[in-house]
Amino acid sequence: MKILKNFLVFEGCEGSGKSTQARCAAGALQKRGHKVWLTKEPGGTPYAEKIRNLILFEKPSDGIDPLTEFLLFEADRREHVQEIIRRHTTGEIIICDRFSFSTFAYQGYGRKLFPERRAFMEAVDAEVRQGIYPWLIFLFDQDVAVGLSRKKNQGDENQFENEKIEFHQRVRDGFLDLARRDDTHHWHTIDAHRSVEKIHDEIMSILEKSH
Amino acid sequence: MKILKNFLVFEGCEGSGKSTQARCAAGALQKRGHKVWLTKEPGGTPYAEKIRNLILFEKPSDGIDPLTEFLLFEADRREHVQEIIRRHTTGEIIICDRFSFSTFAYQGYGRKLFPERRAFMEAVDAEVRQGIYPWLIFLFDQDVAVGLSRKKNQGDENQFENEKIEFHQRVRDGFLDLARRDDTHHWHTIDAHRSVEKIHDEIMSILEKSH
Repeated sequence: MKILKNFLVFEGCEGSGKSTQARCAAGALQKRGHKVWLTKEPGGTPYAEKIRNLILFEKPSDGIDPLTEFLLFEADRREHVQEIIRRHTTGEIIICDRFSFSTFAYQGYGRKLFPERRAFMEAVDAEVRQGIYPWLIFLFDQDVAVGLSRKKNQGDENQFENEKIEFHQRVRDGFLDLARRDDTHHWHTIDAHRSVEKIHDEIMSILEKSH
Repeated sequence: MKILKNFLVFEGCEGSGKSTQARCAAGALQKRGHKVWLTKEPGGTPYAEKIRNLILFEKPSDGIDPLTEFLLFEADRREHVQEIIRRHTTGEIIICDRFSFSTFAYQGYGRKLFPERRAFMEAVDAEVRQGIYPWLIFLFDQDVAVGLSRKKNQGDENQFENEKIEFHQRVRDGFLDLARRDDTHHWHTIDAHRSVEKIHDEIMSILEKSH
């Protein structure tokens, strides 16, 4: 495992506020003089953006095979790791909105590819990442109904947001399970029910202590 | 390995005539009273067709990471295996224009992911196929320059056809190597320099003997 000290990942369910927090953290770090590369998955490069559209907005009406979906996310990740993450390994802080943990939470727990295909998926993901691992993972944890209603009000629904609440509950539980199982101690589970400002303060406080 | 007795694969380089031969064989088998499902990879379902377009016609101008390309082909294959091949396992003959062997020939040998990633790619492909394997594989072997000029005259170039001749030579050699290494004895290497009629007769003769 190659832990990149400048690589921070923001994870969470739909409407958990992670993208807002990623932007706030990027802005605050820039004000303090850091160079910051704010990116996301899926879709962190122009070609990955095309894969993202295929996954999020063009799925067949009767659904997609979970393993097909997994492979498309991994293709997207590969492009992103090669084109963005590996090219910003020095001098910049990379803040990434979703990474491998979302794939495990959504396809593994949400689509129930776990436990049967866990080892397979972890092996593919490790190959795609080339062992690269973030220094910190912030998990924005929140009641799924609250998150989904937030997202509905924003009005840009993708096909995951149309999934049943049970799916999103499995995703939330999956994220929490990933945080528990991971012995790198680099996870920070953030209570995402609070105000944007309070959460931002907590993030910045963790960032200050971790450097 | 689950060998499907009704599953026939036509493989070969660009312009080797395999698609023409697949259509001719399908027509001849239908005339003899068989139900035939003629399909292809990439692009054997409406959603797979979208993945196909992404791979063949929308690649970044500075190229695509070979592993990204591999994962997209496997996503396409998964969709095809789930939606088409597994649903036509009885009563119909499936004739498939390209399958896993093309992925190994093009991405493994052509893009040079072999030998380093051979085991990884074979493991992903086996998971995607769920062990399904064709009863017969016809490899249409031909001088690559002849095939490329045939294809150019047809006027529908994809990004593989724009690769250098050395790439296509590696693909051809790769196909021949796959045929040599595979101990299922279900490969038939066809000299594709001959007329459509002569090749068709050979295919039909092999099909008659194999049932």
